[in-house]
Amino acid sequence: MKRLSLIGIGTGNPDHVTLEAVKAINAADAILIPQKGPDKADLAELRERILAVVLTNTATRVVPFDLPVRDAANPDYPAGVANWHDAIAGAWAAALAPFPGADHVALLVWGDPSLYDSTLRIAARLDPAPKVTVIPGISAPQVLAAAHGVTLNTVGGPYLTTTGRRLRDHGWPFGAQTLVVMLDGDCAFQVLDPTGVTIWWGAFVGMDQEILDHGPLAEVGPRIVATRATARAAHGWIMDIYILRKVMP
Amino acid sequence: MKRLSLIGIGTGNPDHVTLEAVKAINAADAILIPQKGPDKADLAELRERILAVVLTNTATRVVPFDLPVRDAANPDYPAGVANWHDAIAGAWAAALAPFPGADHVALLVWGDPSLYDSTLRIAARLDPAPKVTVIPGISAPQVLAAAHGVTLNTVGGPYLTTTGRRLRDHGWPFGAQTLVVMLDGDCAFQVLDPTGVTIWWGAFVGMDQEILDHGPLAEVGPRIVATRATARAAHGWIMDIYILRKVMP
Repeated sequence: MKRLSLIGIGTGNPDHVTLEAVKAINAADAILIPQKGPDKADLAELRERILAVVLTNTATRVVPFDLPVRDAANPDYPAGVANWHDAIAGAWAAALAPFPGADHVALLVWGDPSLYDSTLRIAARLDPAPKVTVIPGISAPQVLAAAHGVTLNTVGGPYLTTTGRRLRDHGWPFGAQTLVVMLDGDCAFQVLDPTGVTIWWGAFVGMDQEILDHGPLAEVGPRIVATRATARAAHGWIMDIYILRKVMP
Repeated sequence: MKRLSLIGIGTGNPDHVTLEAVKAINAADAILIPQKGPDKADLAELRERILAVVLTNTATRVVPFDLPVRDAANPDYPAGVANWHDAIAGAWAAALAPFPGADHVALLVWGDPSLYDSTLRIAARLDPAPKVTVIPGISAPQVLAAAHGVTLNTVGGPYLTTTGRRLRDHGWPFGAQTLVVMLDGDCAFQVLDPTGVTIWWGAFVGMDQEILDHGPLAEVGPRIVATRATARAAHGWIMDIYILRKVMP
């Protein structure tokens, strides 16, 4: 592998793909695709749907690989993640071994490779190092804001992008007015004092299953907790995201 | 106007356009395009370049309008901006007056309509209110991160998106490790203690004129100031953005 393209593909709507991504997909010798696991089949299928629409280069091979499972039992979390990333880089190399002519390899990255995604870090473990090119993709915060017709920032104001874990562990960040919360497995907004806080929430943003809700956190927070639990049970998985904005005194 | 589509078009590379944006462009009865002014001609021309490539619906009219100039002499800044937004909404209506059948109107928005862009706020002034649809577009922070091959966040870490003005007025935000700085007219990073800070900088990101630099702020900061001044003089305008990351104690 001499070149590796990390191609952002958006959040589930195949039309999120950019013209740049279409060109990059068709310029690759091989496209690595994680095998469907028992869960999140909707996500795995998305990559196949996109390729069915935009891949027209008949010389490009689609190469499946088995995504290794992280050892959640490892008490050293950073070491566990590092081992897992090593294993993924190894799985890429193993899957490509039968195709020694595949100099230019591509990976389709959910959302945008620059935002809460590990692919760049995994790619940095490849030895020898290929030339890495990143193609930006539409990310979940953008799709959420578009669906609600709101802006991420107030006029000239900042906003903080953070995680559910940090919100739960540290509460509302000092001085912040607007938060974008990602990677939240358990409605961390429940730990907050909801006074003066508005939420714009979405699950499966950009996908056919998209669910939206918004309003004063005190009022709609409990409703979102219930909606999320029902949707998670119905689909077997869920991915959600939200914007929080506080009236500043 | 019964429907208004605000379509994000990315930062200057026509290939940033998504398949969703291509469909939305061709679904409109009329596309409002600001007239070229004497400055930033590169930006005005971008919209025409995109339409030349993707607009295939021969029934869609391209309707130019004169972008009003903000009264910078108004000492009440918020009132000056509000008046300006009123004037822009009025200019849209005036330009569309000869086309009473244009029920579905589109605007091509630089970057993403959710990020430091006024179009949603201007659209909210239309009376009667059309149904507004937002199509997300690739934004400058994503293009910058992709060009440098870096992620916006550290592993599980937050990042703050803010403006040059706030950085200059308030210094490094309390507790922040990573900043994305937009709308900076004058290299506000110069006010910072550069110790332990790395910068990833870009001007004209995504465009043919793209310039990149990165490294320890103490070392490359002065070089970026000089590069920026030279490029601004050469092009007559400049738009730049940067990521700052501090080694946390």
